[in-house]
Amino acid sequence: MRSFKTTFRVPFHELDPAGVLFHAHLFSHAHEAYAGLLAKAGFSLKAFLDAGDYLIPLAHAEADYLQPLQLDDEVCITVKLASIGNSSLGFSYRFQNGEVLCATASTTHVFLDRRSRQPVSVPEALRQKLASAHPTR
Amino acid sequence: MRSFKTTFRVPFHELDPAGVLFHAHLFSHAHEAYAGLLAKAGFSLKAFLDAGDYLIPLAHAEADYLQPLQLDDEVCITVKLASIGNSSLGFSYRFQNGEVLCATASTTHVFLDRRSRQPVSVPEALRQKLASAHPTR
Amino acid sequence: MRSFKTTFRVPFHELDPAGVLFHAHLFSHAHEAYAGLLAKAGFSLKAFLDAGDYLIPLAHAEADYLQPLQLDDEVCITVKLASIGNSSLGFSYRFQNGEVLCATASTTHVFLDRRSRQPVSVPEALRQKLASAHPTR
Amino acid sequence: MRSFKTTFRVPFHELDPAGVLFHAHLFSHAHEAYAGLLAKAGFSLKAFLDAGDYLIPLAHAEADYLQPLQLDDEVCITVKLASIGNSSLGFSYRFQNGEVLCATASTTHVFLDRRSRQPVSVPEALRQKLASAHPTR
Repeated sequence: MRSFKTTFRVPFHELDPAGVLFHAHLFSHAHEAYAGLLAKAGFSLKAFLDAGDYLIPLAHAEADYLQPLQLDDEVCITVKLASIGNSSLGFSYRFQNGEVLCATASTTHVFLDRRSRQPVSVPEALRQKLASAHPTR
Repeated sequence: MRSFKTTFRVPFHELDPAGVLFHAHLFSHAHEAYAGLLAKAGFSLKAFLDAGDYLIPLAHAEADYLQPLQLDDEVCITVKLASIGNSSLGFSYRFQNGEVLCATASTTHVFLDRRSRQPVSVPEALRQKLASAHPTR
Repeated sequence: MRSFKTTFRVPFHELDPAGVLFHAHLFSHAHEAYAGLLAKAGFSLKAFLDAGDYLIPLAHAEADYLQPLQLDDEVCITVKLASIGNSSLGFSYRFQNGEVLCATASTTHVFLDRRSRQPVSVPEALRQKLASAHPTR
Repeated sequence: MRSFKTTFRVPFHELDPAGVLFHAHLFSHAHEAYAGLLAKAGFSLKAFLDAGDYLIPLAHAEADYLQPLQLDDEVCITVKLASIGNSSLGFSYRFQNGEVLCATASTTHVFLDRRSRQPVSVPEALRQKLASAHPTR
């Protein structure tokens, strides 16, 4: 579970007037990669939504844009678990177009009880699954 | 030109299944505030697009999410010039829902020549306009 | 409640590479106008979401695009109730940029029970409120 | 060139608070399928953008929503050329989740000269390519 790769093709509707991916959309694609890693660990967002116990909002997101992404570019995202806190998970992302590193990003997600909206521990089963291939920080 | 305020109302189509603003959209709203500050300084993005000399892509964006933003929340964004580099501008943002600070963000934008896509100096007229109310770094 | 007007300013992040509003976003703005009309009738979408009794998905949406909408255009949307069915409501929309009619649209929304996802009657209070200023079809 | 199929997986960031695909996004996905059909005919949107001769805005779009699309649903879009006019092309779309038809849509696109924004004939090479497998209307 150390990392997960997924790809997307830059769609027309995410281009800005300069013909490049509008920066905010990078975070949507990062989120898809994050969801893919969780799913690979056996914890699909769909299951979280259906179970209704947790909310997992972002506490932080950031990105560095290195090269423009253009229409039809095939972008490979590599997402890695970067940190496991008591109630938070951190992930880092690399966006590559072929050999070219086009962007990097990182996000921090906090587990909240759905009703109280108070932080709760990362579910133990998820923690173990993620930690098994990664040193806890 | 030290700062600019604008507001938006959280629309239904930017909510996620948890009923809160999907995080990536915060950057779109930050961009609206940035465009508003530039316009107030006499440099509308529309004029930049029409003139066609520059591209001003983001080099960096980050946000801290402090409180969820919900449907119909009236959010006030305050954007401030944070730094002026040779070919870059930095901005910081505060998102407030009434008295509550819900998020902060910052962005760095780089001026590129449209054709060569090489960095160029921030246009002097814009620099002066922005700098007049702000110490250059 | 015969009609409701609202405005939006075309934002940078909804432009396509041709510098005009990407067509799909027109439907998001129509939805904002629809939500505004419902709210004016005393039935905010937020209340529907919080109460959790109904889903009101679209059954149909269509638009005719007459003139391009460009960055910073101030667009006035006029939404009107077009039809009241047993479990559905129809609305029509006009998008004007000053005197220029730029687009028209229409949508049909169906009331479903949240749990069974089966059609249910339009809530009587809403029906009365809407019908009071409009002949039922 | 009679038809083209493509798929997408419903992403988290396109869900609404009811947990289903927000209706406007269906048109973005339809547009991806349309772009795919054009590309298969040898006319990528990227080439159109780069050449800069034409704009191909939508004149009309409509959709019927039959079944909700939910997180991670694998949706197959089949797009077909529906009509060839002098300066317009019409397409129809079917969205299927497995055997279930979830939505249908149709769009009309008009070819404009980029500078004059006046309608021009559909490029002959594209017309022939599309018409070869389809009776002109």
